[in-house]
Amino acid sequence: MLSTSNPESAVLKSNTAALKRFQGVRATTETLAAGLSDADATVQSMPDASPMKWHLAHTSWFFEEFVVAPERGETARFDPEFSYLFNSYYDGVGDRHDRGSRGLLTRPALERILDYRQHVTSHMEELITAGNQRALNLLPLGLAHEEQHQELALTDILHLFAQNPLRPAYRHAKPLAYDTLSGSNAWVKFEGGVMPLGYDGPDFHFDCEAPSHDVIVHPFELASRTVTNSEWMTFMSAGGYNTPAYWLSDGFAACQANGWTAPLYWFEQDGAWWSQTLRGAQPVDPDAPVHHISYYEADAYACFAKARLPTEAEWEFAATDKLVQGNFLESGRLRPAPQPTRKNEISALFGDVWEWTASPFVPYPGFRPEDGTIGEYNGKFMSNVIVLKGGSCVTPKDHVRASYRNFFHPDKRWQFSGLRLAR
Amino acid sequence: MLSTSNPESAVLKSNTAALKRFQGVRATTETLAAGLSDADATVQSMPDASPMKWHLAHTSWFFEEFVVAPERGETARFDPEFSYLFNSYYDGVGDRHDRGSRGLLTRPALERILDYRQHVTSHMEELITAGNQRALNLLPLGLAHEEQHQELALTDILHLFAQNPLRPAYRHAKPLAYDTLSGSNAWVKFEGGVMPLGYDGPDFHFDCEAPSHDVIVHPFELASRTVTNSEWMTFMSAGGYNTPAYWLSDGFAACQANGWTAPLYWFEQDGAWWSQTLRGAQPVDPDAPVHHISYYEADAYACFAKARLPTEAEWEFAATDKLVQGNFLESGRLRPAPQPTRKNEISALFGDVWEWTASPFVPYPGFRPEDGTIGEYNGKFMSNVIVLKGGSCVTPKDHVRASYRNFFHPDKRWQFSGLRLAR
Amino acid sequence: MLSTSNPESAVLKSNTAALKRFQGVRATTETLAAGLSDADATVQSMPDASPMKWHLAHTSWFFEEFVVAPERGETARFDPEFSYLFNSYYDGVGDRHDRGSRGLLTRPALERILDYRQHVTSHMEELITAGNQRALNLLPLGLAHEEQHQELALTDILHLFAQNPLRPAYRHAKPLAYDTLSGSNAWVKFEGGVMPLGYDGPDFHFDCEAPSHDVIVHPFELASRTVTNSEWMTFMSAGGYNTPAYWLSDGFAACQANGWTAPLYWFEQDGAWWSQTLRGAQPVDPDAPVHHISYYEADAYACFAKARLPTEAEWEFAATDKLVQGNFLESGRLRPAPQPTRKNEISALFGDVWEWTASPFVPYPGFRPEDGTIGEYNGKFMSNVIVLKGGSCVTPKDHVRASYRNFFHPDKRWQFSGLRLAR
Amino acid sequence: MLSTSNPESAVLKSNTAALKRFQGVRATTETLAAGLSDADATVQSMPDASPMKWHLAHTSWFFEEFVVAPERGETARFDPEFSYLFNSYYDGVGDRHDRGSRGLLTRPALERILDYRQHVTSHMEELITAGNQRALNLLPLGLAHEEQHQELALTDILHLFAQNPLRPAYRHAKPLAYDTLSGSNAWVKFEGGVMPLGYDGPDFHFDCEAPSHDVIVHPFELASRTVTNSEWMTFMSAGGYNTPAYWLSDGFAACQANGWTAPLYWFEQDGAWWSQTLRGAQPVDPDAPVHHISYYEADAYACFAKARLPTEAEWEFAATDKLVQGNFLESGRLRPAPQPTRKNEISALFGDVWEWTASPFVPYPGFRPEDGTIGEYNGKFMSNVIVLKGGSCVTPKDHVRASYRNFFHPDKRWQFSGLRLAR
Repeated sequence: MLSTSNPESAVLKSNTAALKRFQGVRATTETLAAGLSDADATVQSMPDASPMKWHLAHTSWFFEEFVVAPERGETARFDPEFSYLFNSYYDGVGDRHDRGSRGLLTRPALERILDYRQHVTSHMEELITAGNQRALNLLPLGLAHEEQHQELALTDILHLFAQNPLRPAYRHAKPLAYDTLSGSNAWVKFEGGVMPLGYDGPDFHFDCEAPSHDVIVHPFELASRTVTNSEWMTFMSAGGYNTPAYWLSDGFAACQANGWTAPLYWFEQDGAWWSQTLRGAQPVDPDAPVHHISYYEADAYACFAKARLPTEAEWEFAATDKLVQGNFLESGRLRPAPQPTRKNEISALFGDVWEWTASPFVPYPGFRPEDGTIGEYNGKFMSNVIVLKGGSCVTPKDHVRASYRNFFHPDKRWQFSGLRLAR
Repeated sequence: MLSTSNPESAVLKSNTAALKRFQGVRATTETLAAGLSDADATVQSMPDASPMKWHLAHTSWFFEEFVVAPERGETARFDPEFSYLFNSYYDGVGDRHDRGSRGLLTRPALERILDYRQHVTSHMEELITAGNQRALNLLPLGLAHEEQHQELALTDILHLFAQNPLRPAYRHAKPLAYDTLSGSNAWVKFEGGVMPLGYDGPDFHFDCEAPSHDVIVHPFELASRTVTNSEWMTFMSAGGYNTPAYWLSDGFAACQANGWTAPLYWFEQDGAWWSQTLRGAQPVDPDAPVHHISYYEADAYACFAKARLPTEAEWEFAATDKLVQGNFLESGRLRPAPQPTRKNEISALFGDVWEWTASPFVPYPGFRPEDGTIGEYNGKFMSNVIVLKGGSCVTPKDHVRASYRNFFHPDKRWQFSGLRLAR
Repeated sequence: MLSTSNPESAVLKSNTAALKRFQGVRATTETLAAGLSDADATVQSMPDASPMKWHLAHTSWFFEEFVVAPERGETARFDPEFSYLFNSYYDGVGDRHDRGSRGLLTRPALERILDYRQHVTSHMEELITAGNQRALNLLPLGLAHEEQHQELALTDILHLFAQNPLRPAYRHAKPLAYDTLSGSNAWVKFEGGVMPLGYDGPDFHFDCEAPSHDVIVHPFELASRTVTNSEWMTFMSAGGYNTPAYWLSDGFAACQANGWTAPLYWFEQDGAWWSQTLRGAQPVDPDAPVHHISYYEADAYACFAKARLPTEAEWEFAATDKLVQGNFLESGRLRPAPQPTRKNEISALFGDVWEWTASPFVPYPGFRPEDGTIGEYNGKFMSNVIVLKGGSCVTPKDHVRASYRNFFHPDKRWQFSGLRLAR
Repeated sequence: MLSTSNPESAVLKSNTAALKRFQGVRATTETLAAGLSDADATVQSMPDASPMKWHLAHTSWFFEEFVVAPERGETARFDPEFSYLFNSYYDGVGDRHDRGSRGLLTRPALERILDYRQHVTSHMEELITAGNQRALNLLPLGLAHEEQHQELALTDILHLFAQNPLRPAYRHAKPLAYDTLSGSNAWVKFEGGVMPLGYDGPDFHFDCEAPSHDVIVHPFELASRTVTNSEWMTFMSAGGYNTPAYWLSDGFAACQANGWTAPLYWFEQDGAWWSQTLRGAQPVDPDAPVHHISYYEADAYACFAKARLPTEAEWEFAATDKLVQGNFLESGRLRPAPQPTRKNEISALFGDVWEWTASPFVPYPGFRPEDGTIGEYNGKFMSNVIVLKGGSCVTPKDHVRASYRNFFHPDKRWQFSGLRLAR
């Protein structure tokens, strides 16, 4: 969440800039929902995923709950029942609708949710324009929060469409023309040393990225690019999914219990591997990064490749001074792209796929969540989850940075998660 | 299914009459779907229930699969993928979509399903008009099948809406003005004797109703009306749900595992009992028949009341020569109504609520299902289910008769199921 | 339970005879436990099964609870904690130890349980000798109860040993010399008619066997012998376990969920079928009756064989005037034996294997369980279970009769259950 | 496992010393089993626990598999079936018996397992005496392995006895006279700095303790003693188990799913808290350390106390130069004891209870498991588990050291696990 020492980020230095950014993020969310039917936006395909309608509403609820209602009174709420329906997990706010039952809410309809968005947007626009401090203070967090849900909305709709035997496309069903840029992987050496891990500077960051603190990074090597689909097929052919020696004990148990034999969404057709993508069913692109794999699979692959996953500190060490650029949501590709390999150069740290690290998500020394309900943001998830770095092809570009700590349980596969080797 | 010895029922003696009945049943189904959104018609609230879209499509698939495709060729199918999507359980037809995943099909949309209906209806109309024998032969079964799904569609949509904290009404949210006709129950005596159980006459009937065969019915008494909500509240107040002595062993295990403390859909509000109905949340009507109870609850109540449930033969004995009249789907009430009590007279055997009997659903002596896929209709469900008689307030009136054998597992509660005592 | 109209069975007409029978049954139970270690007698291999120690104790608890304590006072109990530990399901008696946790009671040790038995036996001997009415009245039921547990103790120990990769033998590990008497099956015709079903005469019988009442039995044919292992192998070879058309819907679901591909305890070794028996691992005897199959399997086989299972009334009709003789516990064989086939003659109705009928276990017209706790004997199990007839190779011969109604859930396989065809 | 750079630990510098230590550890294991019946030693009370018989056999299998069979040939094995039965999780060795079914092995009996132990012990004694290098090389690991199972055997037998309503005592049922030494907790300050974490010196250590590597420890404070039972009761009275704000998200889910309201084995009796201990049911000792709590509970308590758990590095920093002394297995107390509080002094880091740290169990930089099957020791468990430090009242004193890394899943409660606060 927004650190108290810097209530206003540099990018939001004027109310006008704040308003413009607010409107931009809100509009993007609605653009992502365009083209979906009421039914598409309602159904929940598994407890981890949420319906598009819920994402649209919850990101509005966040501003209503923490800004509009406190500033303009309870009567300014669009509908008093929405607080119960669209709270996600903030116990401090009160009871909430069961997570696994989000898909049973055929009412309110999509159209009404869009009205709700407009209602909250209008209030917020007025408050921002008027320089309301609560609105401006919460804005960076609220927009970062909404961007997180933009990515989740896409991974969730992909999961839903993947359950449909008709294999609908979310966008552009036409096959991509694939590049074949990817050469063989190269190892890039890093000397390591004492480095500041995390971020607590003036720009927006989540609470869990702070405080910045010194850690010792021992010498290591990092792969110049992420592991590709074609490399993954080699692992599969070599019996990787059936060889317990490559796997963590919990990982192999998960592999067997879930019957994993390939990345999520892969299926065989006429002797070739295809996968369900946001562009519908498409042939697997051999040179593109593998994605939709769990941490357990990533770790098993690393063992198979006689390497390991990088720690969060190593990854962040390598990312120092790198610009955040790559294949993000804005490209419209909606799929990872083959990554160029250049000698002694790390490519594509940002974008394409979230990279599993070897690091459990733990608090940094001196970490303290904000007081109050808003403090329920990250700290309470600091168990059993693993840090991922770098953002993916469905992450908004402005959302991510080197210190950004994404996290998921090690058996989760429905995000655009891949891996880069270290040793 | 349609008995082979009477391929054409009396009611369908002319093609014109057949066409009219066909069109009437098809139109009713569509009327039931009117007013539901694409999302309402898509979501599946539990594996036992199916989405309205699925009911609309499956009842069309039935005619397409067994009449249109055989008569007009595979190219006459609306969409070749629909055979996979909308087969229910006919193993003979081929693979089918997983039952519990019916609610994940956001595509095809409701509108396209309605087009599908029209496509099949048109083909059938032409075939019926032309006197096509396959069409005419299958018609009675196909329409009985569609009527079954009319009832299921309503019980399923009620289940869906009951999961929504907004408690939407399917129709007419306004409270009903309740009658208070119901006097205390009276016992009506029957001498019993040898009776023919079942039906194998010329009119349409399902395969499981035949052959008619003699059974001995011993003297018994039957309650003049079904158990009311107010009587059920007495059972609840007396600790009925917590007293194992009233319950079958499997029943009490189910009661505890599911946390039953009242009929399905009941909830307390400001000290009074309400229930979710097709007309939205409504106060429980004390004089109306209790409904949405399992067989286990019905049996426990009977034990509490020092009585028992009637056997199927006893019920059918009492129904001999009774006209099929009562509170059916056509009344538009969509809820059971208080039943008048008249001395020495059985009232409301038909309509209002399905009445749990004491009889497991077993084949009659000499029962033989039809050859082929169509024979998968009833016989394969003859284990672990209990017979219910009489029809409910959401059953089409023409659908039911004294020999009609409805059946559900003893722990199911989402049908309009109630009970009448015997001793 | 003991019918109130005949408190004293003919066989127990003198106290001396009663004492002798009591001592005989008690001694048999202990003989069955001989040779088992403390550990063998303690472990519970599944919730349906109970440890030998528990059978030994519970059958003593029954006499202590219903005779010794009421007659001689609470201080006459061997150990006050045993009432909690060894009650099976009598809710009227008070709390009881969780059924699935019976195997966690490593204390009291086997030796102490045998002391408990002796303690109860001594008290009972004194009461019987003294002509105590409560003792004499309960004796027939108490001994029938103990005989039921004799059979269960053997089926439970077989289940336990079958889980052990060492495949221990309960008795006589040496292979049996098999007879090959069995010819092909013949159909025997019965004209049917009105018959009295059940028994309420002067001899001991359980409450559920009464009242005797007239039923109509329609003409039928019954197989001269039960289905053999070799016939079962034909079913297996024909893909019986993979063909849904043969199965009840619930049955095929159970088949797939449990991965059934052969009767319980069968395994392949060097290309031949073996099974775990009470005599250890033994080759499957092709001519002996198939056993350790569920009702669902029996019903599927009958469908495959274009026949059906007999109803309880048909079976009992065929058994009228037949002597109870066959391969029972007393033979010491501990396995079913090949059954001779003679023209127009039903063989081996009794002994060898319990025969699944087509009849759910329902109360007979006028059935009323005894008042009080003892009435919890049969009535509360009258749902979801199927009647089996005739007794098995581990049933005590005196225990069974034509009207005897054994019952198990249709998916249970750990009893010596087989089938005989009807049509 | 044994580091390759120091195949022979200092303590085992002569064959005679090695033999003596071998004999001592083996004898201790057998002493722990003394007094248990065959049944006590056979039953498995949950999948996480193993029967004493299994511990006795598996620790022998380890020496047989990795020393006796390779050195003396397959014929030197006691029984060829034991390899399958008593392998724990070494996939490299071959198939193994299902972990959750260990308690079904009533055969081989305890006596035969003790013979097996003697057989393996004799072979090992001969090999050690003869200076066999494979035997001597494996000895440190084999004995550390056996000591781990000594502790597990006691925690497993406690779990078994806790399921028994008779609440048997493993040893000494008489209540302990409790000390009341414990004053209020004090905070001890540490400046931190760069420290070497882990151990790779000449003495025996597990593979996961190496390599030693520099880490930065930031300034911190550590509680002078562990949290006591009386402090825990305060947490309970304050609604700690019902307040989600104190809990990790996964933790509160586990708390609710399992119905936790107190530490494992606690129960109320006549208004006081008791717990099942190795000495039978005993009153909870208010001044003794709380134990049998999960990581989730420890973390929630720390949040409630406005503190946190120490990291592994902080704990090890505080333990630098501390002697390993305290309440271990050798004291025979079998329960944690109240810990003295002295100003500015950390007490009882070792013994009494394993202390949950805040650190997930991850490999140290440069960690590499041994080649071959023996390398399956620790590395494959490095996911989802949390490090515990210091040993408990049932850990052999020689087994533990500052660098020792014990680990369990965060929801496990059956070890002697407690907590010490940090901030």
